Amino acid sequence: MSDSALDRLECGHCAAPAPTDQLIGTCRACGGPLLAVYDTARARADRIPDAGRGLWRWAGLLPVPEAGRFELGAGDTPLLPTGIGEWLNSGPTWIKDESANPTASFKARGMAVAIGRAKALGAGSLVVPSAGNAACAAAAYAARAGLPLTVFMPADVPRSFQVEARAHAARVELVDGLIDDCGQRAQAMADRDGSFNLATFREPGRVEGKKTMGFEIAEQMGWRLPEVIIYPTGGGTGIVALWKAFNELESLGLIGPERPRLVMVQSAGCAPLVRAFDVGADQADPWPAGATCADGLRVPRSFGDRLVLDAMRRSRGRALTVSDAEMLEYARLMASRLGLFPCPEGAACLAAQVRLVEEGWIGADERVVLFNTGSPLKYLHLWPNSTHPEHTADSDRRIFAHD
Amino acid sequence: MSDSALDRLECGHCAAPAPTDQLIGTCRACGGPLLAVYDTARARADRIPDAGRGLWRWAGLLPVPEAGRFELGAGDTPLLPTGIGEWLNSGPTWIKDESANPTASFKARGMAVAIGRAKALGAGSLVVPSAGNAACAAAAYAARAGLPLTVFMPADVPRSFQVEARAHAARVELVDGLIDDCGQRAQAMADRDGSFNLATFREPGRVEGKKTMGFEIAEQMGWRLPEVIIYPTGGGTGIVALWKAFNELESLGLIGPERPRLVMVQSAGCAPLVRAFDVGADQADPWPAGATCADGLRVPRSFGDRLVLDAMRRSRGRALTVSDAEMLEYARLMASRLGLFPCPEGAACLAAQVRLVEEGWIGADERVVLFNTGSPLKYLHLWPNSTHPEHTADSDRRIFAHD
Repeated sequence: MSDSALDRLECGHCAAPAPTDQLIGTCRACGGPLLAVYDTARARADRIPDAGRGLWRWAGLLPVPEAGRFELGAGDTPLLPTGIGEWLNSGPTWIKDESANPTASFKARGMAVAIGRAKALGAGSLVVPSAGNAACAAAAYAARAGLPLTVFMPADVPRSFQVEARAHAARVELVDGLIDDCGQRAQAMADRDGSFNLATFREPGRVEGKKTMGFEIAEQMGWRLPEVIIYPTGGGTGIVALWKAFNELESLGLIGPERPRLVMVQSAGCAPLVRAFDVGADQADPWPAGATCADGLRVPRSFGDRLVLDAMRRSRGRALTVSDAEMLEYARLMASRLGLFPCPEGAACLAAQVRLVEEGWIGADERVVLFNTGSPLKYLHLWPNSTHPEHTADSDRRIFAHD
Repeated sequence: MSDSALDRLECGHCAAPAPTDQLIGTCRACGGPLLAVYDTARARADRIPDAGRGLWRWAGLLPVPEAGRFELGAGDTPLLPTGIGEWLNSGPTWIKDESANPTASFKARGMAVAIGRAKALGAGSLVVPSAGNAACAAAAYAARAGLPLTVFMPADVPRSFQVEARAHAARVELVDGLIDDCGQRAQAMADRDGSFNLATFREPGRVEGKKTMGFEIAEQMGWRLPEVIIYPTGGGTGIVALWKAFNELESLGLIGPERPRLVMVQSAGCAPLVRAFDVGADQADPWPAGATCADGLRVPRSFGDRLVLDAMRRSRGRALTVSDAEMLEYARLMASRLGLFPCPEGAACLAAQVRLVEEGWIGADERVVLFNTGSPLKYLHLWPNSTHPEHTADSDRRIFAHD
């Protein structure tokens, strides 16, 4: 198994270096998010990716010593061909189905790396604020690592997320507020008792773990990236991570300078990054009282906003909002027509694709990858006990005119 | 991609042959279950498994023409190392985590093959009786194949299974009874309108799909099978399928004559096959009014009982029952100590292992594979909103004395 070719940590804002062998969360100079930088020559020599299966095949490009590489089955999720392109009279479309990860969401990737690194560097306890899936993923890896974990979640997070996190022995603290309020509670706990804070962009591991989604897409498509990637965006770690992944693959000579255009999708009820992107801002103002059925998109403030918006601009991407009603309608369509039942966040990607194809922004020959970030089984409270065949047929006709 | 090396169908009871190019469910001579037989020389020449990922890598040993190979991401689930062996002062133990399949259970494998074959051979509509996960898996593949599906389920099946099957556009008929009553309704519908019946052992595809679990274990363990496999058993398709898989791998020269001992686990509330095995019967009497929280084990009658009991005897295996309380206790333990939250059926395997290690039936140097057959997220109704730290600690001490 490859050694990590980690060379240094570097602040994403002021570029100040930080030591790699200490449990440091954010930049000591300016407080910004730390990013991992690798020794490309060493990584090249290590023949990345390793044989086998899963996220640790990329260990050479992850900041985790071997002692922290806990194996719960994260990574190497399927990239599923779909009939969507034909329906929309558009190019071939794949879905990267992240529900195949442990705890049934993409959050497992980031937590595998963040918690593995924290354990290997001596953390004694962990804390994380979460809108849902991150809590479950953190709880599973913390359990495997033998580290106590406290989770701060909004009190109105669906029961499914709370039960799963508690089953993994996390201490769940419900907060009367949103995830930014939870973030303050988590940071206060970290300051008070030294628990390591796993909040998005407050430590360098989660971006690194999510980066493997970009590595896998490149590999699964024969090192020829798609023209468009549509990604449901809460705090934006995934956007930063995909962009970083492609840059690293280029530095290894595995791909050329071509890049996909990134489409960032947020909920109409909570869209701070879309709003900032659309007005050309380089930072995002908080979105007050964000509300959406897609718990993963209920993130009113991103600590990594500058990095997210920068990656979006460089990719010549687009930012869109989707309503809760659209998410549920497209989820039902995907389940009943593709055999793939997505979470609301995943359905939002198809809603965005339909709009961008209609607009002509996605061309008829362009290859598109959508993300289903997690399992619908944590969202069953959104679903009726019965279906409505008439509504279904009408809606299908409207959306899939080319069928 | 490999052509199927299917040579013929053959009755598992009377050995009468059946044509491979027609949609035949059971033996026309005696009504027994049909099994697929392959041309080993052709399969050898085809270099099985193919490169890539997923169940269709084994297409040469599956009875599905290329037109029926729908890709939802089934197969190539992780075989996870665990610390269980050290805890129990026993040999190394892995968990085959089938929750990574589409619709989050092992049922996807059988349905991928059964429905793919049915579609390719011209089925116009499908019907299936199900105690839970089979309905969801069938619904997803039927949706992808564009075939209408009717599901007969016990009326008291948890809402999660019903909602998921309906999201995939299945027509769900609730039956006041158990799965054997549902089976009668399904057969009556098939007789009436020609819908193809996907019931366990009533068509040859589901055993073939589940067989890929055995192929993958062999491959993931470097073609050196474990000494013991512990499998939660409803109707017993998996037992028959694992045994068939190993025989086929031997005929291909990929493994030798060694075989694991198979441990069949049923619920104390519904254990027809365990009872039959323990008294040395070659058929199993129905278990009246079977009751258990593990919906997948609530199968009071198996149409394939003779095949299941025969495979169990040949493997020199064991049959055990586990109570619902044990399943929940071990599920909590696995979630809180391993980071792997199993379904109750999966937890039953660890309960059985603990007992067989204590008995000495599993030796200290023997390698063990447990099956987690599905996601716990369809069973969240079984879980409390809070945890009980004192109970947890006591129970852990009792079970993991070597910790």
